[in-house]
Amino acid sequence: MKQMDTEKLLMIPGPTMVPSRVLNTMALPIIGHRTSDFGDLTGDTVDMMKKVFQTENDTYIITGSGTAVMDMAISNTLDKGDKVINITNGNFGERFYKISSVYKADTIKYEPEWGDLADPKKLRELLEENEGIKAVTVVHNETSTGAKNPIEDLGNVVKDFDAIYIVDTISSLGGDYVNVDKFNIDICVTGSQKCIAAPPGLAAITVGEKAWDVVSKTETKSFYLDLNAYKKSWDAKKETPYTPSVSLTYAMNEALEMVLEEGLENRFKRHDLLARATRAGLEAMGLELFAKERARSVTVTSAKYPEGIDDKKFRGLLAEKYNIRVAGGQSHLAGKIFRVGHMGSAKEYQVLGTLAAIELAFKELGYNAEGGVAAAKKVLSN
Amino acid sequence: MKQMDTEKLLMIPGPTMVPSRVLNTMALPIIGHRTSDFGDLTGDTVDMMKKVFQTENDTYIITGSGTAVMDMAISNTLDKGDKVINITNGNFGERFYKISSVYKADTIKYEPEWGDLADPKKLRELLEENEGIKAVTVVHNETSTGAKNPIEDLGNVVKDFDAIYIVDTISSLGGDYVNVDKFNIDICVTGSQKCIAAPPGLAAITVGEKAWDVVSKTETKSFYLDLNAYKKSWDAKKETPYTPSVSLTYAMNEALEMVLEEGLENRFKRHDLLARATRAGLEAMGLELFAKERARSVTVTSAKYPEGIDDKKFRGLLAEKYNIRVAGGQSHLAGKIFRVGHMGSAKEYQVLGTLAAIELAFKELGYNAEGGVAAAKKVLSN
Repeated sequence: MKQMDTEKLLMIPGPTMVPSRVLNTMALPIIGHRTSDFGDLTGDTVDMMKKVFQTENDTYIITGSGTAVMDMAISNTLDKGDKVINITNGNFGERFYKISSVYKADTIKYEPEWGDLADPKKLRELLEENEGIKAVTVVHNETSTGAKNPIEDLGNVVKDFDAIYIVDTISSLGGDYVNVDKFNIDICVTGSQKCIAAPPGLAAITVGEKAWDVVSKTETKSFYLDLNAYKKSWDAKKETPYTPSVSLTYAMNEALEMVLEEGLENRFKRHDLLARATRAGLEAMGLELFAKERARSVTVTSAKYPEGIDDKKFRGLLAEKYNIRVAGGQSHLAGKIFRVGHMGSAKEYQVLGTLAAIELAFKELGYNAEGGVAAAKKVLSN
Repeated sequence: MKQMDTEKLLMIPGPTMVPSRVLNTMALPIIGHRTSDFGDLTGDTVDMMKKVFQTENDTYIITGSGTAVMDMAISNTLDKGDKVINITNGNFGERFYKISSVYKADTIKYEPEWGDLADPKKLRELLEENEGIKAVTVVHNETSTGAKNPIEDLGNVVKDFDAIYIVDTISSLGGDYVNVDKFNIDICVTGSQKCIAAPPGLAAITVGEKAWDVVSKTETKSFYLDLNAYKKSWDAKKETPYTPSVSLTYAMNEALEMVLEEGLENRFKRHDLLARATRAGLEAMGLELFAKERARSVTVTSAKYPEGIDDKKFRGLLAEKYNIRVAGGQSHLAGKIFRVGHMGSAKEYQVLGTLAAIELAFKELGYNAEGGVAAAKKVLSN
């Protein structure tokens, strides 16, 4: 294989650093995917996945990216002309809207400001004004803005209506508090490569009773992503309908074990602590955070660039000189903000080292940014 | 991770044994998928993939199973009511038919006997009788039967018509002779886990000019599997539209290097030799091969069970006592045939050991089957 620089610290909002304990499982030989050994492994993986989702709902692991399960959630529930409310306060909220459009749903956009949260009252109004809404889609944690939506409160609204509640927890599950059953989430999707700290390439989806009722009445619009096929193979013999990624299943299993060993509560606390340290550090450097205070994510922090700082130069310096990757802005935020991921297996020293390197990089580009590390240390020492 | 028996020899028609040189690449740290390092790696992987496909056509690597790219080939080219000829002489030929049906194409089945091949003359008649056929689908190597179709000759027929030629080479590419450009294949799909000997979870698709012309006029029917999105991201910056499996890309790159180091010609010869040894061995045991002589696969061999041999007992003995997995029959062939895969990294000693263990297992079940190893040795020593 081509030589690559695999030694850089990933402080991007996914894929995240994967512990070597997880990576090493993938060096194990392949086993047949239609064997009881693999069925047991998948069963075990799904059981752990359900604990992390905090759900009793049917749960499937899919070979594909997070977008594959977002697609699955929409294509299995919305037919042409079906009404859907897409909450679009970020790039991934927009993605649900785009997917709904491909399947010709009758889309109603609820567009809170990017960086702010969706208001449950406003959602209730929309559901009351528009009769016959079949689904509401929302992204819990918007990596594009560093903001998050109040998915428990939104779920308390949707449950009063016939609509099903579809939530993307791709960049929050395992890092921020998600309780699928308590939050009344009918379909919840996630990815392997964010807070769970497994390699990219797998995704998961939960389907509750109310959602199954809709799925069973929806036209089959995709072959590879047909939920009924996954249900049928799983119910019959704990198998997937098509060949799954055996190696990634090893890794996912090990990563989920690590999540549960640490404990969900501890993991949420660690993410919250690192988020507060990052925010304090960047603010102490004089930067303005992009997300509104009431909406800030615990897995990714976004900040506006100081006047005159060039995005490419800044991130280039961080990557080439300091061996740290952070992310730029997406869509209309490109060049205007940068984003620091602190999710998955992220540790204090990584956040501190990143803040210190950001100070150095800014200084080199002519912006004086001291005090970030000191402020972060204060948060961590409390 | 749960303890599993990862020491069994996989003589199933995929996933196949993956060399540790390939597996070990997956223990490398994850890198960002929107970096030039990863772009270079993917570019390098695609270049090697094109050499194996023997094509100049656009080639994409997809995170998903072989079925994902079969779906992609159909959903991007056939709209409701479009006429397609599905050649269905096996389970995977049937799959193309099922996918075409999901997208409501007007399907015409050409059903040669299972275990036999499709006749180019018959295909020409069908294309002449039925005006306006938009696509022809065929599976090169049918793992379900152990037979293969003459895809070069069939391609020579399709090229005389407006129809595009869609070929599944999932279980042949890298093991049997495939030349996408010479065979006039407009869309060719394959998987990582068969003759290429990479882990399951990636698939690849080639798209030629005639096919792009059709794709551009076809309604977008899938979000995750929309070929236009892959083209757009690739053309703009050698990226995938959605997060790819970084670890599996490492493995695929290394596996393709090994394919090219051995050389395609040598690889085809090795597969052919092992196939002939396996066939000679099983026939010497008094078994009847399932596939017709003119149609036999070089990557998987199928044989009918002798009277009174129970499929589950036989394969159970091979797996538990002799640590070898072979496959049973699919669909209406379940219980009637078994299938031995000899593809990917398969070696002489594995084929010989498998034949010897099959003799022992048959003997234990009351069927006297000597002479298999001797016959295979004869083939190998020539």
